[in-house]
Amino acid sequence: MDEKILNIFRKNPDNYISGEEISQKLGISRAAIWKHIEKLRQRGYDFAAVPHLGYRLSAVPDRLFPEEIKFGLDTKIIGQRIIYYDVIGSTNTKCYELAEKDYPQGTTVVAEGQTKAKGRLSRPWLSPRYKGIYFSVILKPDILPMQMPKITLLAAVSVASVISKLTRLSALIRWPNDVLINRRKVCGILTEMNAEADRVNFIILGIGINVITKRSSLPKGATSLFEEGAKDITRAQLLRKLLMELESNYLLFKKRGFAPIVREWQNFSAILGSRVKIISHSEKIEGQAAGIDSEGALILRLDNGFQKKILAGDVELVR
Amino acid sequence: MDEKILNIFRKNPDNYISGEEISQKLGISRAAIWKHIEKLRQRGYDFAAVPHLGYRLSAVPDRLFPEEIKFGLDTKIIGQRIIYYDVIGSTNTKCYELAEKDYPQGTTVVAEGQTKAKGRLSRPWLSPRYKGIYFSVILKPDILPMQMPKITLLAAVSVASVISKLTRLSALIRWPNDVLINRRKVCGILTEMNAEADRVNFIILGIGINVITKRSSLPKGATSLFEEGAKDITRAQLLRKLLMELESNYLLFKKRGFAPIVREWQNFSAILGSRVKIISHSEKIEGQAAGIDSEGALILRLDNGFQKKILAGDVELVR
Repeated sequence: MDEKILNIFRKNPDNYISGEEISQKLGISRAAIWKHIEKLRQRGYDFAAVPHLGYRLSAVPDRLFPEEIKFGLDTKIIGQRIIYYDVIGSTNTKCYELAEKDYPQGTTVVAEGQTKAKGRLSRPWLSPRYKGIYFSVILKPDILPMQMPKITLLAAVSVASVISKLTRLSALIRWPNDVLINRRKVCGILTEMNAEADRVNFIILGIGINVITKRSSLPKGATSLFEEGAKDITRAQLLRKLLMELESNYLLFKKRGFAPIVREWQNFSAILGSRVKIISHSEKIEGQAAGIDSEGALILRLDNGFQKKILAGDVELVR
Repeated sequence: MDEKILNIFRKNPDNYISGEEISQKLGISRAAIWKHIEKLRQRGYDFAAVPHLGYRLSAVPDRLFPEEIKFGLDTKIIGQRIIYYDVIGSTNTKCYELAEKDYPQGTTVVAEGQTKAKGRLSRPWLSPRYKGIYFSVILKPDILPMQMPKITLLAAVSVASVISKLTRLSALIRWPNDVLINRRKVCGILTEMNAEADRVNFIILGIGINVITKRSSLPKGATSLFEEGAKDITRAQLLRKLLMELESNYLLFKKRGFAPIVREWQNFSAILGSRVKIISHSEKIEGQAAGIDSEGALILRLDNGFQKKILAGDVELVR
C-alpha cells in the first residue's frame, strides 16, 4: 500500500493531491492514508501538506527501498521481486539461500551495507552503508556449467554500459569482471553457481559498485563514481538502470547467443591490444590481450607468436 | 566404543575373547562391556558366548553401518567421516547441506534407502532399502568449474573397476556416467557443484548401485549385480572397496592429471568405436564414438568425416 500511495504522488510530481482523491483511488479511508503517510515520513519520505489542497511528495530518501527501485523499472524478470536489507552479511550468500528455497529467477537481494561482502576467491569487498550499491540476482540460464564465464562478462558489460550512459565517465572492463574508471576499480562482480554436470540449477550474480564512497576509505587501486566526478547520480537510479540493462543483455544473450556480448565487451575492454600479465594460482604469464573467444576465455598472444586461451586469473596491465 | 569392541573381535575372528581381556584393553568395566555387546546384538551383531572362554563375533548384520565400512578402509580422505542414515530423502541433498556447513572433504553420507533419490536432470533413482548402496561424498578438487565432467568420469571409472575386480562381471561405462552390465544400467552417478567462475568450492559426488535389487522392481533397462550373477558380494564390502578406489583415482588425478583416467575410461567404455545417437535438449545427432578428449568431452565422428565435441547429452547405442 505504501508503494501504491507513493506511486500516485510520483505520477503527479507537481500537483497537490487531496486525501479524498487518494482515498477514492485506493479504496481505503482517509485515516488509513494518513497513517501510511506518517509511516513513509518515518522512512525518510517528505510530504508538503497544504490545507484544502492536499499533499505533495517533496523529497524521497536516498535509500534503495524496493518502492524506489521498482518505480519506472521496466523489466519482466530481474528485480520484479526485491528483498531489501539495511545491513546484511553478504547479499550473495542470502540470495543463494533463497535460490535453494526455489525463489524465482530474477529475485534480487539488495542491501545498503554488507558486513561480510566477498569478491572472487573469497577476497573481501568493502561495503560501507549507504555509500554504494550492493545486490545479488538469481539467474537460471539454460546453459552448461562451463558457460558460466559468459554470465560474468555479460554483467561486466552491463555495468560498464550503464555507467557510461548515466555519467560522462569512461568505464572499462578488465577481464574477467572488474570495471575500472581511470584505471581504478569501481565495481566488483562475483558469480556463484549451483550446477550438475549437464545443467546449471542457478547462478547468483552479485555486483558491488562504489558510488559515493570516499577514496580515503577504499583500498588502494579502488575508486567511486563520486570521486571520479559523477556527483549527481543517485544510488537508486543507478541500481534501477543497471537491473534494466542486465535484463536487456540477458534476454539478448538468450535470443542471439554470446556474440553480441563479445562485441560489447570489445567496446569496453580496458586491455584489448595491451600487454598484460596474467596471474593465476598455477602460473604467471605475459602477452598481448588479443580478445575473448566465443566462450568468454581471454586470448593471449604470447611472445613466441602462439596464442593461449586463459580461463581464469588476474590481469595486470604491463607498461 | 562399539567400534573399538567390534574391532577387537574382528582382529581375532577364530578365537574366543574373555570379558577380562577386553576390559583390560579398553580400560572399561566388564559390566560396561556387557552393555555394549547387548547394544550391538540389538543392531544385528551376533556373539557366540562360551563360559570360561568368552565371546566370539559370529555374525555381522547386512548393514552399511560406519563401523562396518571403516573396518579395513584404507583411505586418508574419503570415508574418514561417515554419516549414516537408515532412510533419507537424498544423500546428495544432505551431503550438499553438510558441505555448506564446512564439513571437510571426504565426508560421506550413506543411506540404506532413499525416498527422493535423484539422478541427472532430476530423474528419479529407485533406492529401495537394504537393496543397494547409495552414498554421496564431499570433494574439494583444485579445478575450474568447467573441469567438473572429469570428476564424473573418474567416478564412473572407479565403479566399473571395482565391480570388475569384486565380481566376474564385465562392467562398462556409457558416457558420461552410466555403468552397465550386459547393456543394462546397474549404477547411476550424479555430481553437483558449488562454484565461482574461477574456483570450485565443492563437488558432491553421489553414487547409487543396485546390488541385490530384483529386476522386477527396477525400471526397464536397469539391473542389479545380483541379477547378473554376482551373489556373494556384500553391500558393505562393495562400498568399502569403492571408497578406496575413488580415493586412489582421485589422488592419481591430483598428481598426474586426467590422462590416466582417460586411459582407464577407454578400457571400460561401452561405446568406444560404436555407432551412437546423442540426445540432448537442443539436438539429436548420430556418429561414431571416437573417444573422450582431455576435458572429458565425448568425441563423435560424424558421417561427413568431421569430428564433433559433445559436452552433454544421453547416449544410445545404434544397432
